[in-house]
Amino acid sequence: MGIPYYVPSGNECLLFETAFRRQLPLLIKGPTGCGKTRFVLHMAAKLGRPLFTVACHDDLTAADLTGRFLIKGGETVWVDGPLTRAIREGGICYLDEVVEARKDVTVVLHPLTDDRRMMPLERTGEILRAPDEFMLVVSYNPGYQNILKSLKPSTRQRFIAISFDFPPPETELEIIATETGLERDKCRVLVNLATQLRILKDVDLEENISTRLLIYCAILMMEGLDPYQAAQAALIEPLSDEADVQQGLLELVRATWG
Amino acid sequence: MGIPYYVPSGNECLLFETAFRRQLPLLIKGPTGCGKTRFVLHMAAKLGRPLFTVACHDDLTAADLTGRFLIKGGETVWVDGPLTRAIREGGICYLDEVVEARKDVTVVLHPLTDDRRMMPLERTGEILRAPDEFMLVVSYNPGYQNILKSLKPSTRQRFIAISFDFPPPETELEIIATETGLERDKCRVLVNLATQLRILKDVDLEENISTRLLIYCAILMMEGLDPYQAAQAALIEPLSDEADVQQGLLELVRATWG
Amino acid sequence: MGIPYYVPSGNECLLFETAFRRQLPLLIKGPTGCGKTRFVLHMAAKLGRPLFTVACHDDLTAADLTGRFLIKGGETVWVDGPLTRAIREGGICYLDEVVEARKDVTVVLHPLTDDRRMMPLERTGEILRAPDEFMLVVSYNPGYQNILKSLKPSTRQRFIAISFDFPPPETELEIIATETGLERDKCRVLVNLATQLRILKDVDLEENISTRLLIYCAILMMEGLDPYQAAQAALIEPLSDEADVQQGLLELVRATWG
Amino acid sequence: MGIPYYVPSGNECLLFETAFRRQLPLLIKGPTGCGKTRFVLHMAAKLGRPLFTVACHDDLTAADLTGRFLIKGGETVWVDGPLTRAIREGGICYLDEVVEARKDVTVVLHPLTDDRRMMPLERTGEILRAPDEFMLVVSYNPGYQNILKSLKPSTRQRFIAISFDFPPPETELEIIATETGLERDKCRVLVNLATQLRILKDVDLEENISTRLLIYCAILMMEGLDPYQAAQAALIEPLSDEADVQQGLLELVRATWG
Amino acid sequence: MGIPYYVPSGNECLLFETAFRRQLPLLIKGPTGCGKTRFVLHMAAKLGRPLFTVACHDDLTAADLTGRFLIKGGETVWVDGPLTRAIREGGICYLDEVVEARKDVTVVLHPLTDDRRMMPLERTGEILRAPDEFMLVVSYNPGYQNILKSLKPSTRQRFIAISFDFPPPETELEIIATETGLERDKCRVLVNLATQLRILKDVDLEENISTRLLIYCAILMMEGLDPYQAAQAALIEPLSDEADVQQGLLELVRATWG
Amino acid sequence: MGIPYYVPSGNECLLFETAFRRQLPLLIKGPTGCGKTRFVLHMAAKLGRPLFTVACHDDLTAADLTGRFLIKGGETVWVDGPLTRAIREGGICYLDEVVEARKDVTVVLHPLTDDRRMMPLERTGEILRAPDEFMLVVSYNPGYQNILKSLKPSTRQRFIAISFDFPPPETELEIIATETGLERDKCRVLVNLATQLRILKDVDLEENISTRLLIYCAILMMEGLDPYQAAQAALIEPLSDEADVQQGLLELVRATWG
Repeated sequence: MGIPYYVPSGNECLLFETAFRRQLPLLIKGPTGCGKTRFVLHMAAKLGRPLFTVACHDDLTAADLTGRFLIKGGETVWVDGPLTRAIREGGICYLDEVVEARKDVTVVLHPLTDDRRMMPLERTGEILRAPDEFMLVVSYNPGYQNILKSLKPSTRQRFIAISFDFPPPETELEIIATETGLERDKCRVLVNLATQLRILKDVDLEENISTRLLIYCAILMMEGLDPYQAAQAALIEPLSDEADVQQGLLELVRATWG
Repeated sequence: MGIPYYVPSGNECLLFETAFRRQLPLLIKGPTGCGKTRFVLHMAAKLGRPLFTVACHDDLTAADLTGRFLIKGGETVWVDGPLTRAIREGGICYLDEVVEARKDVTVVLHPLTDDRRMMPLERTGEILRAPDEFMLVVSYNPGYQNILKSLKPSTRQRFIAISFDFPPPETELEIIATETGLERDKCRVLVNLATQLRILKDVDLEENISTRLLIYCAILMMEGLDPYQAAQAALIEPLSDEADVQQGLLELVRATWG
Repeated sequence: MGIPYYVPSGNECLLFETAFRRQLPLLIKGPTGCGKTRFVLHMAAKLGRPLFTVACHDDLTAADLTGRFLIKGGETVWVDGPLTRAIREGGICYLDEVVEARKDVTVVLHPLTDDRRMMPLERTGEILRAPDEFMLVVSYNPGYQNILKSLKPSTRQRFIAISFDFPPPETELEIIATETGLERDKCRVLVNLATQLRILKDVDLEENISTRLLIYCAILMMEGLDPYQAAQAALIEPLSDEADVQQGLLELVRATWG
Repeated sequence: MGIPYYVPSGNECLLFETAFRRQLPLLIKGPTGCGKTRFVLHMAAKLGRPLFTVACHDDLTAADLTGRFLIKGGETVWVDGPLTRAIREGGICYLDEVVEARKDVTVVLHPLTDDRRMMPLERTGEILRAPDEFMLVVSYNPGYQNILKSLKPSTRQRFIAISFDFPPPETELEIIATETGLERDKCRVLVNLATQLRILKDVDLEENISTRLLIYCAILMMEGLDPYQAAQAALIEPLSDEADVQQGLLELVRATWG
Repeated sequence: MGIPYYVPSGNECLLFETAFRRQLPLLIKGPTGCGKTRFVLHMAAKLGRPLFTVACHDDLTAADLTGRFLIKGGETVWVDGPLTRAIREGGICYLDEVVEARKDVTVVLHPLTDDRRMMPLERTGEILRAPDEFMLVVSYNPGYQNILKSLKPSTRQRFIAISFDFPPPETELEIIATETGLERDKCRVLVNLATQLRILKDVDLEENISTRLLIYCAILMMEGLDPYQAAQAALIEPLSDEADVQQGLLELVRATWG
Repeated sequence: MGIPYYVPSGNECLLFETAFRRQLPLLIKGPTGCGKTRFVLHMAAKLGRPLFTVACHDDLTAADLTGRFLIKGGETVWVDGPLTRAIREGGICYLDEVVEARKDVTVVLHPLTDDRRMMPLERTGEILRAPDEFMLVVSYNPGYQNILKSLKPSTRQRFIAISFDFPPPETELEIIATETGLERDKCRVLVNLATQLRILKDVDLEENISTRLLIYCAILMMEGLDPYQAAQAALIEPLSDEADVQQGLLELVRATWG
């Protein structure tokens, strides 16, 4: 496996490398499907470190990250969680949508993100010292944040941070063409549509269209679906359930594609 | 067992097949009893893949999908959940009303619905790679959605989507006649009634009448119940508890059936 | 044990038998103590099927219905729940006040109430196919329903339904006389009182008086309590704690009984 | 142990005995400390049946009543709960403040309180038939009831009911004198005070003074405390924390005792 | 260990002794740090009974008081909780801030606080009879009480009660001097300050200053800190986080100490 | 390991030492990243005591502090929690953000913070007496406190307290220069910026900038990032997600740095 394809749009690679070299924890902010996960995959491969990704959610607890004793074949054995494995193997641990995790996760993150750089495994009695190659990366989507779910400042101020957005049009065109093989003219039409959609003020979307959906649409077109059917299934239906919003999106597709 | 009976109303079979061939996850939207489950049964049989259906609910957790260690005859054994089995056997996993499931389900769905197409079984230490034949299908009813229960955009934008509705009258007549053996004239009366009901604006129904209830009504008529008794038991009582709504429905039955 | 005594008030026996013969799930709606449980007991005996009744409540989970592994005498053994037993033995499973059960119960009911008619026992790895003799009956009281507790339309539209009410006066008199041996004149006085009470608009009762309470009152009278003491203990005190409501009821008793 | 001392104030003994003889479940309503528990103790002794009392609370579950498997000396043994013991031994089970119990308790009470008179012990596979000597008595205080906590009508209409109140003055005097040995003149002063307090409209008490507190006060006086100190410790402080309410009570004590 | 130092301010010792002799449960009310715990320590020593103190909190359950089966060195052994030990050893059990405990604690307290004076240990099958030397003491702070957290009258009316307040100035001076060795002149200044603070109406404090904090301040002064630094660390900072409240307190310190 | 670098800003070292010598528990108040943790590290090293730090959170329970029985290699062994270890080894236990912990933690802290200075380990049956060298330190950030989460006065009045703030400019400059090696002129620019930011009234920040973030910014500058990129990643992005707040911060950076 080579290094996963990634087209940078700013100084994010430099910042990631600096953070890695100086053992600074990194926070990535940005909307759904703008390429945060791909960027981390790319950097992990480039730096030659194993990557441990965890999609956080309401019920994620510290033990899901650190590990637990499990019963296997009648014996009780300790099984490392993804964070513990990242520390032991000097890898990168990526907590996606970290604000969704439960609050006991902070007890694990705090001593890992100051000069102690250690993690006590109370259950086994071990104290793990993070090697220089270990790096903690977390992400969240500022568009979701609300009062109940946010990083406490005492956690947040332990990270340097980068803001992500969708790639600029030429980059996005490049990505779609490379990933799907669709001819560039058709890719350009898709990117133009996305640009229109993302600046749209009159349509009530919970979140903007992602590069991923554009790629899905391109795949359906490559498979022979007519562009309107492809847009219906890959763009309009995934974005909204509201009849009037869907109608607005459809008109935009028609206006853009002629 | 042959291929379960299904009458398509649009390009849904083509979209399903394309999604299956290109490993795109599929989201099906639509009202109760419009045939979503039957459609998935039909496609799974047509594509020759085993189907694993899970009716999601408030307390459904990731472990219900992936599996758990159980104690059997004094020994601890791992028992695959339906999602794990679908991956191992290259089958189709169908999560019905996925928005009802608890949030830790996302941790399982995310790595399965991007280019990783994998699922870590932390408890056993396995990392499952989904074979090309594995497909994830989820459904929900947009009519139910509320602020507390909805797919997060970061999950939703991982699927291509199809919207379902009740079948057009001629198709629905065909379905009822085939499934129950009731003569076509009587089936037509039932379908006409359903058409009237579904466009009704003055009656307060939580959800529209399903094809399933029409079939129940036809069965009761086949069994010799008089049509009004059949309509009372299979259409009116299941649709509402409100006396005035029931009265409105009864009048509509009378007006339609003479 | 013969067939439990039951006096029909409409086509409910025909509907139950038809549903049983055609494998349609049945929903019974009606107020407290109007005879729903007795009706199901009667039909089960008439059809010669074993009956498994479960009074649902806020904490009832799927495992309470399907079964669980229990530790008995040091060994772990699987113990079937009442629903599982009903399926294995081709019996009738009656879930009383089903809207009270927790939401994971739907995961069990859905595949049992469409053409699959099956129930996977994930914990044992079994897939049970319901025999033709298995029937699912659920009930609830529409008077209680609120926004938080109701059957979702996707569950509800899986049943044919009957509405129950208190028996008509002559039937209720018959029931009381048969069950308690109280002379018919005195029974008539009780039934007249109930009729008055049930149409009462000025008294604030959470629910109307049940046939059961009339029977209790008749028993106390048979035991020699004076009718006012019997009415106080069996009718007035069980119906309300409010002094003014109790006063209103007492006046009605006096007016009716002279 | 003889029959615990109890002075009846109405037909409650007759009603209890009739309910016992005819297997009717009994509901006792009344304020704190008015003698409900003592009445049940008295009747159980008089009828020669063992009594099993459970003080219900927010976390009381069905298993607390029926029993559970416990690990004792390395072995798993089933331990009957108080309700199960009452059934096996043909005793009286008294659930004090039953509205406080959790909702799964209804699943146990319902089949015990209709003509089935049985209780399935799912965990052991047993089905217990209640002998004729078994009786279920429940109580609650209507003064506490609120919307969240009340007996559902479907449960409530399974009981005959008695309302309790504080004993009439002469009876209460008798009780205090018998229980504490305090001379009757002083007892009369206490009873007069209670009578005044219970009709008091201007003082904001959560609940009225119980016979129990009057007995405590009498004990302190027997031990040589001066009557004001005794009233302070046994009447005023237990009834309220509010300075003005305490002041009002003190003035009433002064006015009554001179 | 001698009898812990305690200076009575009223008839509290007499009341405690009487309650102990006559087996009446005792409720102590009063603000934080006014000496409730010290009083109980003192009385337990004076009466020669072992004392078992439990600081109650939101998650304290009945099992925390009664005991549980624990696994020790591979064997399951029953470990008595503090209440059980107090009963077995004829000691005094003191539940501090009892209103904080969970509601299942009442099930334990009720049979212990009426003439039964017993506690069933359901898990072991034992029924403990409390010896005459056993005494139950509970306390709470009326200043905290709210609607959600309070003793139910049915629990509360089982206790005789004493109200505590801060000791009178001369007593408090005596306590500080004895406990810290600070010279009496300086102690008087501290007591004067406390007196001023406790009658203060213009400053918004959640609770008044305790004797404990005055002792802390005296210790810091004994250790050579200047009185203002001592007051800052032992009085002002522990009492409030609000800048304006702290300023008000500081001005009071300056005004009192010159 | 030498004594961690710490520059005092007041009498905090004297207070800590006095509290340690006289066994007074210590409460440290102050904003995020102002050096509380570093101060405790410094004092623990200076006093030669081992330090046990716990970052408290919503789900932290007493058992997380005291210890629990764990299954290791098939055997059940007791594993001390950090508080228990601190007591046994005569160390300092530091509970960071103690108001976040669950309420059962108070049951552990209370007997440790009065003259008893002991901790019962109910599960093992041990009663630990804290040696003179044991010290309890807790901290919280008054800026976060709300009604739901605060120390109860009965807990709070058991501590002497110190208020922390960010270090004065010259001290902060010294810290940044020493920790990162950045030349003093550039450090001064960073400190000036922080001073500006901390007095800013027009920008809506949840919490002020910490010394830690200034150090991160200095590191990025040492690594060759241009100062604006460094400020963006280490100051602006970690402080806020709001576009207008970020704009305000950026303008301040420009105004300060020229």
